[in-house]
Amino acid sequence: MINVTIWNEFKHERNSKNVRKVYPEGIHKAIGSFLDSDDINITYATLDMESCGLTDEVINNTDVLFWWGHMAHNEVPDEIVTKVHDAVLKGMGLIVLHSGHESKIFKSMLGTACNLRWRDNDRERVWCVNPGHPIAAGIPESFELPQEEMYGEPFGIPNPDDIIFMGWFAGGEVFRSGCTFTRGCGRIFYFQPGHEEYPIYYNENVQKILKNAVKWAAPTRKLDSLACVHAAEKPEK
Amino acid sequence: MINVTIWNEFKHERNSKNVRKVYPEGIHKAIGSFLDSDDINITYATLDMESCGLTDEVINNTDVLFWWGHMAHNEVPDEIVTKVHDAVLKGMGLIVLHSGHESKIFKSMLGTACNLRWRDNDRERVWCVNPGHPIAAGIPESFELPQEEMYGEPFGIPNPDDIIFMGWFAGGEVFRSGCTFTRGCGRIFYFQPGHEEYPIYYNENVQKILKNAVKWAAPTRKLDSLACVHAAEKPEK
Amino acid sequence: MINVTIWNEFKHERNSKNVRKVYPEGIHKAIGSFLDSDDINITYATLDMESCGLTDEVINNTDVLFWWGHMAHNEVPDEIVTKVHDAVLKGMGLIVLHSGHESKIFKSMLGTACNLRWRDNDRERVWCVNPGHPIAAGIPESFELPQEEMYGEPFGIPNPDDIIFMGWFAGGEVFRSGCTFTRGCGRIFYFQPGHEEYPIYYNENVQKILKNAVKWAAPTRKLDSLACVHAAEKPEK
Amino acid sequence: MINVTIWNEFKHERNSKNVRKVYPEGIHKAIGSFLDSDDINITYATLDMESCGLTDEVINNTDVLFWWGHMAHNEVPDEIVTKVHDAVLKGMGLIVLHSGHESKIFKSMLGTACNLRWRDNDRERVWCVNPGHPIAAGIPESFELPQEEMYGEPFGIPNPDDIIFMGWFAGGEVFRSGCTFTRGCGRIFYFQPGHEEYPIYYNENVQKILKNAVKWAAPTRKLDSLACVHAAEKPEK
Repeated sequence: MINVTIWNEFKHERNSKNVRKVYPEGIHKAIGSFLDSDDINITYATLDMESCGLTDEVINNTDVLFWWGHMAHNEVPDEIVTKVHDAVLKGMGLIVLHSGHESKIFKSMLGTACNLRWRDNDRERVWCVNPGHPIAAGIPESFELPQEEMYGEPFGIPNPDDIIFMGWFAGGEVFRSGCTFTRGCGRIFYFQPGHEEYPIYYNENVQKILKNAVKWAAPTRKLDSLACVHAAEKPEK
Repeated sequence: MINVTIWNEFKHERNSKNVRKVYPEGIHKAIGSFLDSDDINITYATLDMESCGLTDEVINNTDVLFWWGHMAHNEVPDEIVTKVHDAVLKGMGLIVLHSGHESKIFKSMLGTACNLRWRDNDRERVWCVNPGHPIAAGIPESFELPQEEMYGEPFGIPNPDDIIFMGWFAGGEVFRSGCTFTRGCGRIFYFQPGHEEYPIYYNENVQKILKNAVKWAAPTRKLDSLACVHAAEKPEK
Repeated sequence: MINVTIWNEFKHERNSKNVRKVYPEGIHKAIGSFLDSDDINITYATLDMESCGLTDEVINNTDVLFWWGHMAHNEVPDEIVTKVHDAVLKGMGLIVLHSGHESKIFKSMLGTACNLRWRDNDRERVWCVNPGHPIAAGIPESFELPQEEMYGEPFGIPNPDDIIFMGWFAGGEVFRSGCTFTRGCGRIFYFQPGHEEYPIYYNENVQKILKNAVKWAAPTRKLDSLACVHAAEKPEK
Repeated sequence: MINVTIWNEFKHERNSKNVRKVYPEGIHKAIGSFLDSDDINITYATLDMESCGLTDEVINNTDVLFWWGHMAHNEVPDEIVTKVHDAVLKGMGLIVLHSGHESKIFKSMLGTACNLRWRDNDRERVWCVNPGHPIAAGIPESFELPQEEMYGEPFGIPNPDDIIFMGWFAGGEVFRSGCTFTRGCGRIFYFQPGHEEYPIYYNENVQKILKNAVKWAAPTRKLDSLACVHAAEKPEK
């Protein structure tokens, strides 16, 4: 059983009729509905909940955390970010979606600005450049997203462990659209597609990718502590 | 002083009037003419020369080796490839151009098939995705090559140390167009632009990139041996 | 079900009474006996068998291949090495043990000399430096091997994807004792402990590591071809 | 000309007679005295100076920043850390020494806890595991530090770009003692030796390593901005 928590800012869906049409119950519920299966246990968390829905109990019981945010990154308290950060280092998987590239949690995990070029309303062809990676299982060589926000290079991230997907945009840009990082015992997957105005999370390839990512990001070990250890006793006597 | 050897298969230029029009003295001479400077010493080597122009003396005196080949990869004797391979591991820099992705030397350095998708006569926009890398010094955020052969992902290479350039093709593909590898003490740069029918090596950004690459790939140390060492004496007595 | 083939040179066990005492049925059988479980199907292959036991049928049906060799690396025909190499690029996992660092298959996968320092009869403490990696599941922070051949740095390998174990030797050296590589769709794990004269493969941590490695290296996809693809049709019409 | 700023907490030297004996003018001055050369311009900065000696002017004019801190990490204001952090992303080189592994700046650049095992008063043998790296130029295969604080694995850092040095400790531990990271346009080198009570910075190999590191870390480009760019105009019309 993998305990998945899906965090969503959940603002666009309430502020915009267009977004609500695409995701009437919120992006988090759309993601939860295709992830749902016998071996996955889903919790939803949104910005408006107490502690953003990320109480110590929720964090401690989460194996993999999804993060969708955009307009309200700064409303997430630093204290929550620190708790999530530590949980990732101790082993919790983290899947950061689309505009989450500018979230506090993503930037603090990577230590970079995570800046990029962007333009609304483009068309993307997602290329699978690492077909042997577990997150790419069952994904074709390429697939199209008829409408997607353009995110273009240079993308201000450290070199990823693996680049799995690269995006081609009709407007003329390219992007490292799917890539992985390891920080402490935590596995992190960033996936660029997922603009709130387009039905990206109904695309079957996107769904397959995120299902694969959950399995890949689930921890094999959780650390108790991140503190330095005074090894007063030498192993060699 | 950096000793640069430019190896060119030098077949297309003799077989095709079109290619000869673009590179009347051969691709190697075109590259040599823009590299030429007070602190670079250039040697030319071609397939038709004795030992492919890569005698022990030439190899031993080379700091950075360029490699352009395409239709005659298999005519390069394995014995020469082995010598070049060992020289790279000992510290010689290697710059592999365009269709050199399928050369024996590139495939043996990387251990992979280096396969890709291709299609002639496309248009490429080269994006600089790693502006801080020494090979990217002075290169704009992107530049266009009005005509270039399309090379598309998936590209069968191990994860590079750094990806410096990514290519966008009008036909719909993307590519890791400039990337680096380290093997032993040798620094390797692969650069995708450079089709024989188009004046790629007259492009000022391409020229700047290759000049930067020479400096970057020049060895800081050359090893004497690649053999295992029997450390009969323990450092700890 | 994971199909595992365990290849062993199987010479030391027949030539040396001391080795035979430790591994009376051969190193391959010792490994097979602790790997054996309901979801793993084991095939044994040795140098003296026809095609080294690695017929096309065996290779095609192998998900993960173990490789133990030492004194007879050169007796493995190049043709077999090429077949194994291609199978790894297409997705087969490869686990290279101890003196296999100088095998043809390991050197051709990595493209480097894989040279190192060595000295017989030392004592090793294996440190787990990447506790979150699936191969490290259940492994303590460190464990000792009272007798092991010393393998010391510098180790002539490309930068690994991940370093999971580092070895400390009483004689004064260090080593990257457990590390992973990806080549094509194939996942490769190199593990240094395993000298033929010592009962390394009876150590419970070593056994756990190799069991973990089998699961980690099992392919999620196998490619049909490693050839370049002529993408005559543009995705963009 | 490379502008180097050497930041030192400068507390131990004032609080402890023992440390003062080793570094009478402070660790920063000891480092500055061997770095000093015609093509390097040195500025000193310490915790007790206004803005920790890191005014906007100093930061803007720094190509490479050294960082030595230990007991007073928390006295460096977050605002200064943020400025230094941004400067690194824009291209400034950063060399973090010894106990600086727990500095705010190092942890925020890497996004991890940078935790480790430690024990005072051990003996270290530093192995050069990457002899071709520019930072290793002129450094022997190994060298000894008769007294050094033990820093042992697991070290809570992301996978480095390159591991150049690995430490063997007489007490039984190993460590990735010299490693590099790239964040944005900034090159980062972490070097473990440098405990305040021992004359580490008088060791000629340590001095050579740090001189090499300055050249390696000097920027080839400095960015103006770390902001996202609204690319309102498509490159493709």
